[in-house]
Order: sequence, then structure tokens, then C-alpha cells
Amino acid sequence: MNTTLEPVAVIGLGNLGRALAETFLRNGHPTTVWNRSAAKAEALVARGATAAATAAEAVAAGELVLVALLDPQVVQEVLAGAADAVRGRALVNLTSGGPEDARELARWATEHDAEYLHGAVYAVPRTLGTAESSVNYSGSAAVYQRRRSQLDILGTSTFLGTDAGRASGYDVAILAGMYGTLGGFLHAAAMARSTGINVTELTPKLLSWLTDLFPALSTFANEIDNEDYTTEESSLAMNQSGLATITRASESQGVSAATLLPLKELIDQQVAAGHGAASLARTVESFRNGQ
Amino acid sequence: MNTTLEPVAVIGLGNLGRALAETFLRNGHPTTVWNRSAAKAEALVARGATAAATAAEAVAAGELVLVALLDPQVVQEVLAGAADAVRGRALVNLTSGGPEDARELARWATEHDAEYLHGAVYAVPRTLGTAESSVNYSGSAAVYQRRRSQLDILGTSTFLGTDAGRASGYDVAILAGMYGTLGGFLHAAAMARSTGINVTELTPKLLSWLTDLFPALSTFANEIDNEDYTTEESSLAMNQSGLATITRASESQGVSAATLLPLKELIDQQVAAGHGAASLARTVESFRNGQ
Ligand SMILES: NC(=O)c1ccc[n+]([C@@H]2O[C@H](COP(=O)([O-])OP(=O)(O)OC[C@H]3O[C@@H](n4cnc5c(N)ncnc54)[C@H](OP(=O)(O)O)[C@@H]3O)[C@@H](O)[C@H]2O)c1
Ligand SMILES: NC(=O)c1ccc[n+]([C@@H]2O[C@H](COP(=O)([O-])OP(=O)(O)OC[C@H]3O[C@@H](n4cnc5c(N)ncnc54)[C@H](OP(=O)(O)O)[C@@H]3O)[C@@H](O)[C@H]2O)c1
Repeated sequence: MNTTLEPVAVIGLGNLGRALAETFLRNGHPTTVWNRSAAKAEALVARGATAAATAAEAVAAGELVLVALLDPQVVQEVLAGAADAVRGRALVNLTSGGPEDARELARWATEHDAEYLHGAVYAVPRTLGTAESSVNYSGSAAVYQRRRSQLDILGTSTFLGTDAGRASGYDVAILAGMYGTLGGFLHAAAMARSTGINVTELTPKLLSWLTDLFPALSTFANEIDNEDYTTEESSLAMNQSGLATITRASESQGVSAATLLPLKELIDQQVAAGHGAASLARTVESFRNGQ
Repeated sequence: MNTTLEPVAVIGLGNLGRALAETFLRNGHPTTVWNRSAAKAEALVARGATAAATAAEAVAAGELVLVALLDPQVVQEVLAGAADAVRGRALVNLTSGGPEDARELARWATEHDAEYLHGAVYAVPRTLGTAESSVNYSGSAAVYQRRRSQLDILGTSTFLGTDAGRASGYDVAILAGMYGTLGGFLHAAAMARSTGINVTELTPKLLSWLTDLFPALSTFANEIDNEDYTTEESSLAMNQSGLATITRASESQGVSAATLLPLKELIDQQVAAGHGAASLARTVESFRNGQ
């Protein structure tokens, strides 16, 4: 172990936290770990990590403290229990949350003389620390600059500004998009299974079509930013009937179409309002609450 | 116009039908077109197409008859009006529909001494006939073989078998997946807008993350085919809290999270049934109707 490298602490050893600890250990950092269920530390200790008995003890051991817990609520609880130890520490919180959660934690950190940097991780545990992994940060510019070489171990780093909530603002939008794709994939898989198509056979066809669709999403993005929904490509009327066909086929195959019905309803509203010839992208206007 | 090439008819001049007719005209085929609203034929006639006064007249003019109408119901209606003309014709129907719709049209065609090939188009009008375009066919193997060189003009052709419903079986699954991604994109765009992020700025970040996610979808596909949901990657519990975070953030930004709620409910059910540590892919089991 190269003890000239900065000591790092990892709070939370779920799937992400374990991958974080492994990545820092692999890179030679003295790594102290803490998890509510202590058993998850064992494999890491075997690879050279130090297990702390409390979160406060872990925080005290790491100049850089990475937090990967279930949700912002758990982060608040765990940090509250380590409040006396955070003074002078750089807290890098990689737990998914909304912009307000990150801002609240940043305020709490300032009150406790700690620095706060929020990170939104775009990796799965397996790809963390590889070229496919990237992390968007916002919050303390000082921490980002001072700890850049350690942060870059995790993946490509991007700093989005000093508003601690900025990275989360992007993140919640990106994750909303991701869950759309995940829900669509699961629905497609269920439909394939119901007609004897292997999901492993369907998936490459689906992924290739989604990739082909990406330029259309960029076109939609332009339409939305310009609020100009004229199209010769993908009209609301065509998508209305497409969705009707798919939900009908799904139900007749014994597969619930529930995950598609809210989108269908928004598109139906747009068509009913007389926008059938306009672009599907116009549906974005129906997402505003109370409209 | 090279009159040694087979005459082609295009029934329906919506966004797809116009692109079909343009593609065949560009490739030198004598092309006869018909559309309910006759005005849509004008620009094509200017490029050399012949406008037919009725669908029957168009069918009579084309050895190969391509159909691109709103939905299977409209196809039935329009073909019923041209029933006397279809004898001996090769009908290639590119209208999206369920497997049962395609089988019903295939039976109707056989009864009227016509051949039926169903095609599921993976292209937008702009990419039709380019390298990004592909079409999955099923139904008449004779038509597929005899007309292969004309079909290949539209994109990469794949024949999935003689069950006319097979291409649609894949198609409705792929389109269900596509609408998940489209709904997710629209939700992400609405969330970006609500916090002053340009959608054109968000979109490349979203698409890059979706691309990074594709290997995880292939892992999920294996888990589903093997019905083995052990994971160290993306647990149901983590996704449950991720979705809770995003729906909460969405609503607090004034953006409806309605399109994500049904997926959230299925995941909540899985966790409540004791599968929190299992893979997100296990959610596929909750799509079976009546379970
Ligand atoms: N996994 C990924 O691919 C990924 C990628 C990007 C971002 N993230 C984000 O990173 C965070 C963690 O994800 P994950 O995959 O590591 O989740 P996970 O595997 O479900 O782990 C959850 C962690 O939170 C702890 N925890 C839960 N409730 C607690 C409580 N009341 N008090 C103390 N600790 C508690 C768990 O401890 P126990 O072991 O004691 O239960 C565990 O360490 C999430 O916000 C997630 O959205 C994950
Ligand atoms: N556009 C694409 O990117 C794409 C890609 C793959 C598959 N598809 C599928 O191709 C089909 C057509 O799509 P599209 O984009 O061309 O749709 P579209 O632009 O909405 O065109 C719909 C067509 O159906 C006709 N129509 C509607 N109701 C009719 C009726 N009662 N009687 C006669 N004709 C009627 C319309 O005629 P009028 O002009 O008179 O209204 C028009 O020709 C759909 O099933 C779609 O899912 C489209």
C-alpha cells in the first residue's frame, strides 16, 4: 500500500460503495470503510481496507470522504451521527437525490465546517473506474480542484458549477430518461416472452433500433428548445395510433400495458387539442403539472 | 424513367408512404400512388409518379403493392374497397400492427388470390432507403424471394419466417421498448426545461448514458431467459429508492411523474414480495396480466 497517497473513506458499502472502495484500493489509496451491516466490509478488509466501527470513525480517517448510501434521507441520518468528525473534511456525496437534497446537505456541511461536493455517477459498479464511467460534479470548486486526481480515478469528471444542486438537476432528468428506457425494455422483454421469442434474441434488435432513433431524439430536442413542433417525421397522430396498436397487442398477449398508458394519455390529449399533425415532441408540454 | 423495372404501387401517402414512393421513384421504378387526401400525391406526381383515382386503380397498376396506412383497421377498409383488383398481386404491408392483425390480413389476401408479406420498418422517413434503415419481413417466402431486390431498396431486409404475424411479434415488442425510451426522453426534457437546462444540452448526456446502459440490458436479458435474478449490479431496492427520488424531484419541479408511476408500482410490488436484493430484471415477472 502506497501510504503517500491520500487516505480515503467510503461510507456505505452497497453495490456502488463496494465498487468505490475497490477502485481506491486498486489505485493504492489507504481506504477506510463503514457500512451499517458490518459483514459487507469483510471482503474489502481482505484486500487491504480498514473497517471502521462507526461512520464517525471512518470520516475521521479519510481526508476525502465518499458517501454512497441508499438515498438522501439515509445520508442525513448517517452524517448526523458523524457530525463531530466532519470538520475540515471534503465530503463527496455520490448518493442519487434531487437538487434540493444536495443543496440541503451542502448547507449542513458548511454549518459543520466541512466542504461539500455532489457527484452524479454514470456507471454501473462493474464499469466504475473504467473509460465508460463518468461523474458530473457540482458544489465546492475548491474540493473539485484539490481532489481532481483522486476523482478522476472513478471516471471522466465534469464540473457543472458551484450550485451543489446542479449535478442533481441534470441527474434526475437523465435518470427519468433512463427509467423510461428500463421500463420499455422490461415491457418489450415481457412481450417477447409471451410469444416465445428469447429476450437475448430480441435485445440486440431493440438496442440497434434505439441507437437508430437517437438522431430523432436530437431533432425533438431542437423542436422543444425552439417550441416549433412542425414535422414531416413522427406526427402525434401516427404515434397515437402506434401506441394504440401496441397497447392492444400487449394486452391480447396477456402482458400488462400499464407502463405505457400514461404516455398514451398525454399523446391522446395533444391530439384531442388539435395537434395531430404536430411532432411527438410537443407532448413535452403536457408534462407540466396542472396543465 | 426506366420502364424495364417492375411497376410499384404505394397505397397511403402519410410520412412513411411518401418516403416509400420517393425511394422507388429515385430508384427508377414506375410508381403509382394513392392517398385518401389526393393533395399529398401532387409533389410525387411532379417527380414522375402516377396518381391513381382509387386504391383499386393503384393496386391494378403495381405488381408490387406497398401499403402504409394509419393502422390495420384502415388497411382492412382500404383493401376491402380494392378487393377485385388484388388477385395475383404481391401485397407488402408496412403498417404497424399486432401479430393477429397481420395474420388476419394474410388470410384475407389468400382468400382473394393475393400474396401477403408483412414488413416492420425500422427507419424514420428521412432514413428510409439508407444504410440506417432495416425491415423485418414475415409471411409469403415466395414474395420475399421474388421481390428481394426491390425490398432491399428500402433497407437491410431480414426474413423471420412464414408466419405472417412473426415480424409483428418482434415489432410490437421493439416498439413497446421504443415508447419507453420516447416517454423517458420527453420526461427528461420536461424536467430539464423546468430547471433552465436546455434540452439540446441535456440530450447528448442522456444518450451517452443510455448507450453505456446497453450492456446492462443485455445482462438483464440473460437473467430473464435464465430466470436467475441474482445480481451485484442493480438491485430492486436501489431502483425502488432511485425511482422514489426521481418522482419526488420531478413533482417538486412541477413536472408530472405520471409516466414513471406504473413502473414504480411494479418495482414496489417486487420489493414488497421480498425481492429487494434481486435484479431489477425480475420486474418482468410483474408484467404478466392478472399476476
Ligand atoms: N449501483 C449503481 O449502479 C449506482 C450508480 C449510480 C448511482 N448510484 C446511487 O448510489 C446510491 C447507492 O446505490 P447502491 O447500488 O450502492 O445501493 P444498494 O446496493 O441498495 O446499497 C444501499 C446502501 O445503503 C445502506 N443503507 C440503507 N439504509 C440504511 C440506513 N437506514 N442506515 C444506514 N445505511 C443504510 C445499505 O446498508 P446495508 O448494507 O446495511 O443495507 C447499503 O450500504 C444510490 O443512491 C444509487 O442511486 C448507484
Ligand atoms: N413514420 C415513420 O417513421 C414510420 C416508421 C415505421 C412504421 N410506420 C408505420 O407506418 C404507418 C403509417 O405511418 P405514417 O408516418 O405514414 O403515418 P401518417 O403520416 O399519420 O399517415 C397516415 C396515413 O393513413 C391515411 N389514413 C388515415 N385514416 C384513413 C382512412 N380512414 N382511410 C384512408 N386512409 C386513411 C392517411 O391519409 P390522409 O393523408 O388522407 O389523412 C395517411 O396516408 C403507421 O402504421 C406507422 O406506425 C411509420
